[in-house]
Parts: sequence; C-alpha cells; structure tokens
Amino acid sequence: MINMTLSKNKIKYIQSLKDKKRRMEYGTFVAEGKKIVSDLLVSCQCQFIAVLPEMLNEFAYLNDRGIEIITASEEELKKASFLKTAPPVIGVFYQPKNDFSVVDLKNNIHLVLDGIQDPGNMGTIVRIADWFGIENIFCSPDTVDIYLPKTVQSTMGAIARVKVHYIDLNIFLKNNSDLLIYGTFLDGEDIYKTNLSENGLIVMGNEGSGIRSYVEKWVNRRLFIPNYPALRTTSESLNVAAATAIVCSEFRRRE
Amino acid sequence: MINMTLSKNKIKYIQSLKDKKRRMEYGTFVAEGKKIVSDLLVSCQCQFIAVLPEMLNEFAYLNDRGIEIITASEEELKKASFLKTAPPVIGVFYQPKNDFSVVDLKNNIHLVLDGIQDPGNMGTIVRIADWFGIENIFCSPDTVDIYLPKTVQSTMGAIARVKVHYIDLNIFLKNNSDLLIYGTFLDGEDIYKTNLSENGLIVMGNEGSGIRSYVEKWVNRRLFIPNYPALRTTSESLNVAAATAIVCSEFRRRE
Repeated sequence: MINMTLSKNKIKYIQSLKDKKRRMEYGTFVAEGKKIVSDLLVSCQCQFIAVLPEMLNEFAYLNDRGIEIITASEEELKKASFLKTAPPVIGVFYQPKNDFSVVDLKNNIHLVLDGIQDPGNMGTIVRIADWFGIENIFCSPDTVDIYLPKTVQSTMGAIARVKVHYIDLNIFLKNNSDLLIYGTFLDGEDIYKTNLSENGLIVMGNEGSGIRSYVEKWVNRRLFIPNYPALRTTSESLNVAAATAIVCSEFRRRE
Repeated sequence: MINMTLSKNKIKYIQSLKDKKRRMEYGTFVAEGKKIVSDLLVSCQCQFIAVLPEMLNEFAYLNDRGIEIITASEEELKKASFLKTAPPVIGVFYQPKNDFSVVDLKNNIHLVLDGIQDPGNMGTIVRIADWFGIENIFCSPDTVDIYLPKTVQSTMGAIARVKVHYIDLNIFLKNNSDLLIYGTFLDGEDIYKTNLSENGLIVMGNEGSGIRSYVEKWVNRRLFIPNYPALRTTSESLNVAAATAIVCSEFRRRE
C-alpha cells in the first residue's frame, strides 16, 4: 500500500522516537537517508518508510513485502527528521531481538562496552566492529542506546550488520570467565608484542573513567597501546573509539 | 592582579569567542576545565583565567607571571561556559603562531587533513597525534577550526602539544612532493604488509567524500586498511578518526 501523504500523527510518532521510553514502548527506531535505510531493509523488519516521490521507484519493491510506503514532501520529511538537512527517505524499523550462543562466543572475538556515553563514539565503534567482522557487542545497561537517532546515524549503516546487546556485564563476564577477556590499561602489556587469540572478549571502558572495577576484575589479559616516544609527556589516553580501532586492527592483523 | 568578579563584559567576550570571526579578530580562544587549562598554561600565552574561589590557590602562581586571575562564582562561570555543566575554571588563551621548518618535515611523520568537518573527529585526531608523537597537523582551510570551543574540549589537552596549521594543501604538497606522501584508499596496498617510512606525510580525507582529487594527485603511497574477513559485505569505510588511529599505530609499531 502506498500512502500519498505523511500524516501529522506519523510525524509526531517519528519525532516521539527520540525518547528512549517511547522506543522501548513501541520497540521501534528511526533511520534516515538512503544508505542506512537500504542497509537496514536487508536485516531488519521495517514498519514503514516515508520517501520523496522522485525516489519512490527505488523502494516500490517493498510493496510486495507488505511494507507500508508513504510518499512525503520535502516539507513533511523536514518536520519528521532529526537531521539539519532533511533526508530523501526516513525508515522506521523494529528493534531486532538479538540473541547469541555460547558457540558464537567461543569462536570469534567480540566487544564489551562498559558505559560508553557519546553517541558518536558508539556509532564509530559499531562501524569498527562491522569493518573487522566482529558480530556481537555486549554493552552495560548504562551505555548509550544504539537506537538513539544520533547513534543510528553515526553507524552509517553498520548497525544493520552488528548485533548490539544490553546486558548485566558482571553476570555476563562471570558466566564467560573461561574465555580470554582483554582490556586496555596504562599498566598493561605492549599490545604490539603480546600474543592475541582468535577468540575472546575485548572490553573498552567509559570515556572519562575507563573500565570500572566490577568489570576490570574479570579481565584476564591486560593490554597497553604504547605511546611514542615512550618517555614523552603526552595525552593521558586515546579517545575510546580510536583505541578500539587500534585494538581490533591488532587482533585482525595477525589472523 | 586578582579580580573578584567576572564582569558582564568579560562573560560577553568569552561567549563571543564561539564565533570564528571574533576568534580571528582577537586572536584568542577559550578552554574549559582544570586539565586542559593546566595543559595549555605550559605551552600557550594566557590572556586571563576565571576560577572558583576554592580553586584559586592552584592558579595563584600565575599572578607572578602577570596573568590576570579572576575569581568567579558558579553562576558567572555557568554564564560564560559553552558546556552543559560549568567547569571550575575557564581560560582564554592567545592562538599560538605555529611555524615549522623543512627539517622538521623531513625528520618525522606528520598528518595532513583534507576537509575534516566534525569537531569530535578533529579533537580525536589531535589526541591521536599527541599520543603517537606527531607534532604537526596540516589542514586545508575548510577543515573545522581547531579553536572552536567544541574542538578544543574534545582534544582533552592534546591541543597544548600538537601544532595545527591551516594552509593551502595544493601548494604545501607541491612544495613537499619529494617526501613520501601516504593516503588511504580502497584500492591501496595492504597497510599491514607495506613498508612504512620513519618520515613523511599521512593524508586523511573528509568524512563524506574522502581525499579530494587536488590532494590525491600528490599522494605517492596508497594504503588500505583491510577489512575482515576480506570478502564479507561490510561498511563502506571506517570513521576518519578510527582510520587515523590505525594508520598512526601502524607507523609507530614498526619503529
């Protein structure tokens, strides 16, 4: 079914999904722009899309899949959008029910995020995971919500291919303490010279306070990204997304 | 001299430094918070600082250096601040007149930024440079201003140790085309398997469009950060700060 106008109610509904409470209530989230909507259409169930008439053809196939398509004016998309510049297409998707098995966990590397706060960092980390074939990210419940519109956009579509779980990290790590659990610390071993396994968990910590003690106690392999030259006064740390990029690159470089 | 109140005019002045025009006119910029103000006091000329009375002692030594110190109330700092939570100290600094020599250029690696737009990315890249002992960053004139309050804050103090230059990249790269000039491209050589030199320029491109052709033509070493597994459908690219982190780590790992 193709509707010819994006109703005020639908605009209100889209805008309401800025709120985590509303997203939890409806189990949905918003994605904006052709690239990310197209990526999500491959992996996520879509509630509806609103699209400019001139781009309708590209999405008309959704009709056969029973997905509601709405042609919308620029004006309407502008009202519905969270971006400065309204995109040609907005999609509302159902949040996937991500699961994982113990076998998954044992056979690859996975990320664990302890309290990441910044949506940009979160999106960048999901992109890094996607680039390096890391399928699961386990987040403490106080990590920024992956379905926040800002976070969704900053994944640039990677959100369609990486499974993000919110979970009690203490219980999760306790249950998986037989795995190699890596974390970066200033007193860790030089990552360039350490053996890295083909499986295990990599813990990254909060922007300000790093890995909290209740998570740190489960880390059994402490790593350090050496600064250069070693004795120079430098920043206290790297940004968490930058550190994640280097650590993941080091794991994959050796495989 | 210690002033006992942050005047309305000073608050207005600090707030005006959000504008690039005003920053250019006065040649100054704002930094907020104890860490970054302390870092900048080591390397930059300070115009004045405004500080809570209870923290005055920590900065009283500036009096001997002839720097104006103002004790300010929380209320006043809140009005002057660009942050959600007002910091205990705000400093206004003179923009340093950064220079560089041909010898500098030949004896280390340096970054070149072609049109980076996001203040968070810019700050993260300056932190990466600081961590890896990269002293100079050469930016196209349309790269986001390092002295934008948001960028300054996201450097977490690294701005005090890295020299950022805004320069015509076409002329700069032409004049230095005898150097090894690296850039990352999807058709580049596997960075893990390529020889990397101890000196040269590393070009990183704009978030959306990458390295522009007028810059690309000067790149004489094309690199690629391999995704994993090689044949899997993945994100089109890494975030530019994540890519910068990996490239710099690769250069320094081998030294």
